Amino acid sequence: MSGHRAGPHFLQIPGPSNVPGRILRAIERPTIDHRGPEFQALAKEVLEKVKPVFKTKNPVIIFPSSGTGAWEAALVNTMSPGDTVLMYETGQFSTLWSELATRIGLKPEVITGDWRHGVDAAAIEDRLSKDKEHRIRAVCVVHNETSTGVTSRIAEVRKAIDAAGHPALFMVDTISGLASADFRHDEWGIDVTVTGSQKGLMLPPGLGFNALSPKAIEASKSAKMTRSYWDWASQLGQNPSGNFPYTPATNLLYGLKEACDMLMEEGLDNVFARHERHAEATRRAVRAWGLEIQCLEPKEYSPVLTGVVMPDGHDADAVRKVILEKFDMSLGAGLGKVKGRMFRIGHLGDFNDLMLAGTLAGCEMGLRIAGVPIKPGGVQAAMDYLSGNA
Amino acid sequence: MSGHRAGPHFLQIPGPSNVPGRILRAIERPTIDHRGPEFQALAKEVLEKVKPVFKTKNPVIIFPSSGTGAWEAALVNTMSPGDTVLMYETGQFSTLWSELATRIGLKPEVITGDWRHGVDAAAIEDRLSKDKEHRIRAVCVVHNETSTGVTSRIAEVRKAIDAAGHPALFMVDTISGLASADFRHDEWGIDVTVTGSQKGLMLPPGLGFNALSPKAIEASKSAKMTRSYWDWASQLGQNPSGNFPYTPATNLLYGLKEACDMLMEEGLDNVFARHERHAEATRRAVRAWGLEIQCLEPKEYSPVLTGVVMPDGHDADAVRKVILEKFDMSLGAGLGKVKGRMFRIGHLGDFNDLMLAGTLAGCEMGLRIAGVPIKPGGVQAAMDYLSGNA
Amino acid sequence: MSGHRAGPHFLQIPGPSNVPGRILRAIERPTIDHRGPEFQALAKEVLEKVKPVFKTKNPVIIFPSSGTGAWEAALVNTMSPGDTVLMYETGQFSTLWSELATRIGLKPEVITGDWRHGVDAAAIEDRLSKDKEHRIRAVCVVHNETSTGVTSRIAEVRKAIDAAGHPALFMVDTISGLASADFRHDEWGIDVTVTGSQKGLMLPPGLGFNALSPKAIEASKSAKMTRSYWDWASQLGQNPSGNFPYTPATNLLYGLKEACDMLMEEGLDNVFARHERHAEATRRAVRAWGLEIQCLEPKEYSPVLTGVVMPDGHDADAVRKVILEKFDMSLGAGLGKVKGRMFRIGHLGDFNDLMLAGTLAGCEMGLRIAGVPIKPGGVQAAMDYLSGNA
Amino acid sequence: MSGHRAGPHFLQIPGPSNVPGRILRAIERPTIDHRGPEFQALAKEVLEKVKPVFKTKNPVIIFPSSGTGAWEAALVNTMSPGDTVLMYETGQFSTLWSELATRIGLKPEVITGDWRHGVDAAAIEDRLSKDKEHRIRAVCVVHNETSTGVTSRIAEVRKAIDAAGHPALFMVDTISGLASADFRHDEWGIDVTVTGSQKGLMLPPGLGFNALSPKAIEASKSAKMTRSYWDWASQLGQNPSGNFPYTPATNLLYGLKEACDMLMEEGLDNVFARHERHAEATRRAVRAWGLEIQCLEPKEYSPVLTGVVMPDGHDADAVRKVILEKFDMSLGAGLGKVKGRMFRIGHLGDFNDLMLAGTLAGCEMGLRIAGVPIKPGGVQAAMDYLSGNA
Repeated sequence: MSGHRAGPHFLQIPGPSNVPGRILRAIERPTIDHRGPEFQALAKEVLEKVKPVFKTKNPVIIFPSSGTGAWEAALVNTMSPGDTVLMYETGQFSTLWSELATRIGLKPEVITGDWRHGVDAAAIEDRLSKDKEHRIRAVCVVHNETSTGVTSRIAEVRKAIDAAGHPALFMVDTISGLASADFRHDEWGIDVTVTGSQKGLMLPPGLGFNALSPKAIEASKSAKMTRSYWDWASQLGQNPSGNFPYTPATNLLYGLKEACDMLMEEGLDNVFARHERHAEATRRAVRAWGLEIQCLEPKEYSPVLTGVVMPDGHDADAVRKVILEKFDMSLGAGLGKVKGRMFRIGHLGDFNDLMLAGTLAGCEMGLRIAGVPIKPGGVQAAMDYLSGNA
Repeated sequence: MSGHRAGPHFLQIPGPSNVPGRILRAIERPTIDHRGPEFQALAKEVLEKVKPVFKTKNPVIIFPSSGTGAWEAALVNTMSPGDTVLMYETGQFSTLWSELATRIGLKPEVITGDWRHGVDAAAIEDRLSKDKEHRIRAVCVVHNETSTGVTSRIAEVRKAIDAAGHPALFMVDTISGLASADFRHDEWGIDVTVTGSQKGLMLPPGLGFNALSPKAIEASKSAKMTRSYWDWASQLGQNPSGNFPYTPATNLLYGLKEACDMLMEEGLDNVFARHERHAEATRRAVRAWGLEIQCLEPKEYSPVLTGVVMPDGHDADAVRKVILEKFDMSLGAGLGKVKGRMFRIGHLGDFNDLMLAGTLAGCEMGLRIAGVPIKPGGVQAAMDYLSGNA
Repeated sequence: MSGHRAGPHFLQIPGPSNVPGRILRAIERPTIDHRGPEFQALAKEVLEKVKPVFKTKNPVIIFPSSGTGAWEAALVNTMSPGDTVLMYETGQFSTLWSELATRIGLKPEVITGDWRHGVDAAAIEDRLSKDKEHRIRAVCVVHNETSTGVTSRIAEVRKAIDAAGHPALFMVDTISGLASADFRHDEWGIDVTVTGSQKGLMLPPGLGFNALSPKAIEASKSAKMTRSYWDWASQLGQNPSGNFPYTPATNLLYGLKEACDMLMEEGLDNVFARHERHAEATRRAVRAWGLEIQCLEPKEYSPVLTGVVMPDGHDADAVRKVILEKFDMSLGAGLGKVKGRMFRIGHLGDFNDLMLAGTLAGCEMGLRIAGVPIKPGGVQAAMDYLSGNA
Repeated sequence: MSGHRAGPHFLQIPGPSNVPGRILRAIERPTIDHRGPEFQALAKEVLEKVKPVFKTKNPVIIFPSSGTGAWEAALVNTMSPGDTVLMYETGQFSTLWSELATRIGLKPEVITGDWRHGVDAAAIEDRLSKDKEHRIRAVCVVHNETSTGVTSRIAEVRKAIDAAGHPALFMVDTISGLASADFRHDEWGIDVTVTGSQKGLMLPPGLGFNALSPKAIEASKSAKMTRSYWDWASQLGQNPSGNFPYTPATNLLYGLKEACDMLMEEGLDNVFARHERHAEATRRAVRAWGLEIQCLEPKEYSPVLTGVVMPDGHDADAVRKVILEKFDMSLGAGLGKVKGRMFRIGHLGDFNDLMLAGTLAGCEMGLRIAGVPIKPGGVQAAMDYLSGNA
């Protein structure tokens, strides 16, 4: 095999997404003194610029970490050892979050799901209503379940918590949702939003985020889990002066500033509309192929990625291998209990119509080469939609 | 208009081609002393590495210039004022070359063509046979006519010159052909090959090249046109020690080294096969749309670009405008006498199947949006071919 | 204030160090699928290439984190709640590490120091000898104390532990020492080495490291502190296949590979000798100015940075401000209890003689402009040494 | 020899100068369609932004070429075969320009100089006064003679031409002067200014420039030298719409826009003052070493570079070799008739005080190591001046 493949790789996993050159060039700038005035000005600017991306006026904490670290941070800052947290199984990532909770000494109570629907707000309300003693300290759900392509209706979960009159904190993982799918930290009454840099924010991985609410901050003051690296108070104390309690990931912060600028230049609503449009085009392609979409509820279709279910007897990972080798495109594997039974097409981040057409063409050709019995016409269906000829 | 468009621009003009990141990063290295040992080692390496790309063992001259400069260099080094050169009108670029010859004091004799065929070797032979006095000092043809998508059969032109027993120098412009279409400087008995950096070599524009033959070098010794910047002798004198007679375009030479490495890693034959494959897929798309290909001779189809003829009453430039605005893709305009009557799809340089699918999708959707009466199915036809299902 | 300052900024804090262009360009490459074969090959390569930098054959764990995170990781993987750890106060960073230990529920016992000497191995031996019940579970020291410019003799601490016959784990922070100062994880019998990316490794901040010993791994199996993000077992389980338990900081790993290559190309011994030479030149400059060096023990002079003590009545931060404004150079502040009383000159990482000369010139000129009563001749003294004329 | 040298190379030849990262990152952007609207907007912007750098309101032509090409362009656009041009020998580059003139069929008449002074305006006036028939068609002088470090007083040459009442065109090479030394195309009545990208403009080499006057444009209409690549008329016809007659060096134009922005952000007067200051500091160092400055006339000291004369019996190239090997710094060689007898220190372009200190330290140490009998104290003298303690 030669060391060189012509043309760009298509990174169509549901994150990390394709990092635009403008951000890569920002990241490439020389590292500066993280205690000097130039950095402090940058930090203050970034900490403000990131807020509208979350649609919040409250503080956003930025960690040098993966998104997984931001999950841990959300819990250790607000909970005490042995606390019960209510979680909802939407797929692999909600499952990982509950495993993490267990590891660090919490008691997650998980409402099981079928991995093909989003969070059932009624089930949440029902469970909370029964928790008369308010032993449940937090409700933790995933906004956009990366493993399945299902986007839960977060506003309804908020309503459910309110309807139950329950004081639990509300925590939402929007690691793969933020900046691709509509998200409203303040309006939806979220106490802790968890996300990472490598999806809708279009950055390489390496930054984890917690957006807070006053209630979450208040809770952190009495929460008894030990914490140091993830401690919000140290961050909240230093951030206003453009400082961080330990060395931040300076170069990724250069990129974050650029990413925020790009999102605002395009307009968040335009960003969301672009992703909805690409998701719809993708689903039309999948249906034209005669394949099933993993998400069963149209109101919960993800604008970020689409899970494609394999016909019985066909291995999704074999298809992905063909597509990687023949067409230099990476797709997402089925994870956990759906391994081999589905693959995931990422259409998030810095993405446009012709990239989508190339992506779907790679899927259509790869499926055929792999011997999966599909009907042609998927790309055509997507183009008909994209060009207003559907 | 916002300052940011999501996703990459599709630069599908027939050059400059999409510059791969690996080359851009090479070019971004700090400039060094062009008289120091590090540069001299680089220069010697590059001057050797570029030879196999031309399939030559003879010297290759590199100018800081556009390809147009390399045309001028070819003529002023070998001709004397008032000399007759035989040229063949394959399209806009062969026409520009003959205009240049006139400007600098030569007498081009042009065999007219219809812009839909390549060089007629028999016509060359016929003309040379009649030139008993050998007043024609050079035969100048374009290998890959960028304005039409017609690739002339250079080996046959060589045979024609030989059959006529004529001593004229043989000069070939392969500005858009080299490193995408098969080209053999030595085997085809070419005396001066003219090219530029921004097509198959995958670099930004800024370098012009002349590959020489011993006969061309000999001719340059008695040629009487004045020359300084373009003078081969100064280059040939300095290049063996890794020097240039004036400051070279250092950073583009960094990129050229990288480009040569990439071409050799992939293998030139693989590069040519890749382009032939993409050209065939493109033609299948064009035919499926019910449109005509500018090139009328299958043996002369260009692997570099495809000229697409508009139906009467439809303006190619209006289509290009729609595609640029809606799909962020640049296509080539019809030039000169075919302005508005055709557009050109570049499929050269650092390019792969999914980029091609995106490119063709942009054309198909744009043609429909622009109201051109095409049949859908072009992308499908291309995919059928690319995936072995044709 | 204009937006542009001519020439490069001199980043002469003791880390982050000046990131070389070669590493920045590596980091700028597009992010790839962290679950795909290309990444897995990269990860395996990097995980091996980093070992000789620590002089270890044991596993090295890489976290997306700051160096502070790597401290926390070292403790939570090996300790149980309430465990006693013996620490030695060499300066601000050893102090921060003990505060971190307290925060996460350990009981640090700190041997106080004067911030002008390194670890007193005899004091360690004395204390361990008295710990007959082996309640001390770990000895934690800082190799190169970044706040003072004192490099402790780690081999002697190892000997002290052995002499006391004590089974405590031996943990060493070499965040600012690794790859600039000689460091030998295996030979010195270190159980956990803690470091970060932004000093001798010449990367931007964002990676934390733990080098392990078999004894540390064994201890981690019974250690009872809760952990998830920092959990070694998850890393050790996945790393052999080129995977990480959560999304790694892909682009910094590109840079890490390049950094390891650069260190090996130069040769670690040459790297250390270069730093020793620059440190000696710096100290000669400081002495020529008539100023005091913070480190009082010649055997403990840091090759990484030099702490310069201000004469009474002169504020180090005012000097630093002058130097930043007039000469665009960042120097390190005095931290904690020496704030304002000293500044720190970083001479670590990707650094050479002429950068050092510029650095010392900036200090000498800035000190004079700030009105500090120094003698000129510091740069001269450094040059005399560097050029072999001392 | 290892492949890696620590720290940045000091590129202190008098051009190419150190290219700032901001410009390198601009150049690294993907190449775009040079016939599309985005490029046209860029071209129009650049063609305007470059004018104030020349202090002109007249057109500036930009060629993909070296500065040598811009010399040729100046002559072939304005002269007719056999024309006489008056030139003044200030050093190697003025000599090369006269050789070029001869090569292309002009008759240069050269007023000889001693390479240690600038243009003698009185000699020009004297010669022109005698040319009653106005056979001299142009006066061609070098503003900043790169080979010697002598900056001619261009305004006085203009006065001399006027005093002689002579109609010759006035052409000035400011290849190494522009954007480092004060230069005023319009005010000084220059007809053609010749420059390149790789000096004060801080770009890599690859762009040549001609700034014009109405008189020069008028002259070009009747000038009879053949020209095509260098033809102004083609450029002047296309530039107003943001086009060029052939493919421009797109990526260098990205850099040129950035360079113009940087110069305007700093302010041209500040740029000039910075260079004057560094030149004075350099001369003080040279004098402190006890060495001679090549330029003998204080009014003509170059702010761009300083030529340092070797004591008898010492070879400047041997010193340069020592400095390159020991200190990774490139200095300029003595050229032509002063080869080996002097070296040149470039202090142009993107340069600051600490870079200068490092540069002078490299010279001082290298001179001593090479055994040149100098007095120490050069860097000290420079620092004294730079810090206001002289």
